[in-house]
Amino acid sequence: MPKKVNHDERRNHLAEAAWRIIRRDGLEAVSVRNVAREAGMSLGSLRHYFASQSELLAFSMRLVSERSYQRVEVFQYSGNPREDVERLIHELMPIDEERRAEAEVWLAFVGRAAADPAIQALKQEVHNGLYSGFCQMMEYLDAVNLLRQDLDLDREIKMLHALVDGLVVHSVIYPEMVTPEDMIQLISSHLDKLMA
Amino acid sequence: MPKKVNHDERRNHLAEAAWRIIRRDGLEAVSVRNVAREAGMSLGSLRHYFASQSELLAFSMRLVSERSYQRVEVFQYSGNPREDVERLIHELMPIDEERRAEAEVWLAFVGRAAADPAIQALKQEVHNGLYSGFCQMMEYLDAVNLLRQDLDLDREIKMLHALVDGLVVHSVIYPEMVTPEDMIQLISSHLDKLMA
Repeated sequence: MPKKVNHDERRNHLAEAAWRIIRRDGLEAVSVRNVAREAGMSLGSLRHYFASQSELLAFSMRLVSERSYQRVEVFQYSGNPREDVERLIHELMPIDEERRAEAEVWLAFVGRAAADPAIQALKQEVHNGLYSGFCQMMEYLDAVNLLRQDLDLDREIKMLHALVDGLVVHSVIYPEMVTPEDMIQLISSHLDKLMA
Repeated sequence: MPKKVNHDERRNHLAEAAWRIIRRDGLEAVSVRNVAREAGMSLGSLRHYFASQSELLAFSMRLVSERSYQRVEVFQYSGNPREDVERLIHELMPIDEERRAEAEVWLAFVGRAAADPAIQALKQEVHNGLYSGFCQMMEYLDAVNLLRQDLDLDREIKMLHALVDGLVVHSVIYPEMVTPEDMIQLISSHLDKLMA
C-alpha cells in the first residue's frame, strides 16, 4: 500500500515541522500557514492532511506518545525484569536529543491553559496512555515477585509516574542540573526502595 | 510608608489580573493592554508599574514562588519535624483553589519554549528557589536524625523535588485522577520510605 505509507510519512513530516516551531517559538506560533512554510509544503497540500489547526495540534501531541509506543514495541527484553523496567522508563525520559524533543513538545501542551477543553482532553488522553504503561511495568515487577509485599501497588504506580514526569519537567527546565545520568540514577535508586 | 504599600498592592493587583488571563486564555494572551483591561486600569497607569510586557510576565512568575515563601514565613511549626515537613510540602501543592491557581500559572511558564532565554532564566530562578526549600526540609529531617543513614541526601532532595512537581503537573492535567488527598498520601508514603 504505497499510497498509505506516503500519507503517514507526510503527516509525520508536517507534525515534525510543527514540533520544530513549538520548540523554537512556542505552541502559540503553530498555525497551518507557519507549519506549511516550515515543512516546505503549500498550504493547499497541508490542508489535504490536516483540515484545521486543531487537527494538526492533536496529531502533533499524539505523535509524542506514539513515538514512545513505537520504541516500546521494538524493545529488546533482556529477561531481567528489573533491568527491563528501568530501560523501559529510560524510553520515556529526555536522555538524548530525540527524547528531549518529545519532552519539550509534551511540556508545551501540558502548560496550555487548563480552561481550554480540547487541549485538556488531549493532555488527559496522553496522560492515560503513559499511566497504562506504568501500570504494566509495576504489575510485571509484582508478578515476578520483585516488589516488597507491604506496598500499595496503585499508589506506587502513581508515585513512579509522577517521579518520572517531575524529572522530565526538571530536565527541560534545567538540563545542567538534572542530567540524563541523574535521571537514570534517581530512577534506579527509587526502584531499589520498592524491591523485596 | 503608605505610598510603598499602595505601590506593592497595585503591582500584585495587576499580576493577579495577568494570572486570571493565563489560566483562562494562556500565557500568550498576556499583553499590557489585556492586563490593564482585566485589572480595570488604564494603560498609562499600568505602565507606571510595569514598563513592558516582559517585566509584567517576570513579576507574575516570581509572584508564584513569592506566595509560597510568604506562607512558609508565617508557617506555624508544631515541633514535630516529620509533620512540619509534610505540611510545608503541602504549601507547594495544588490542594486548594489558591494553590491550584499558582500551580497552573507556574506550569504555563514552565511549558514555554526552552529556546526563549528570558523565560528560561525565569523558570530556572523559580526552580532554584523551590530547590533550596527542599534542601532545607531534607537537611532538617537529617539534622534531627529522622532519615535513614544509607541515603544519598543530594539524590533524595532531587527526588522529592521531582516527585512533588510531578504531582503538581498531574494534578493540573487530571484533578479527578490525582486529588489533593492522593497527593497528601503519596508524599506521606514517600517520606515513610526515607525514615530511619
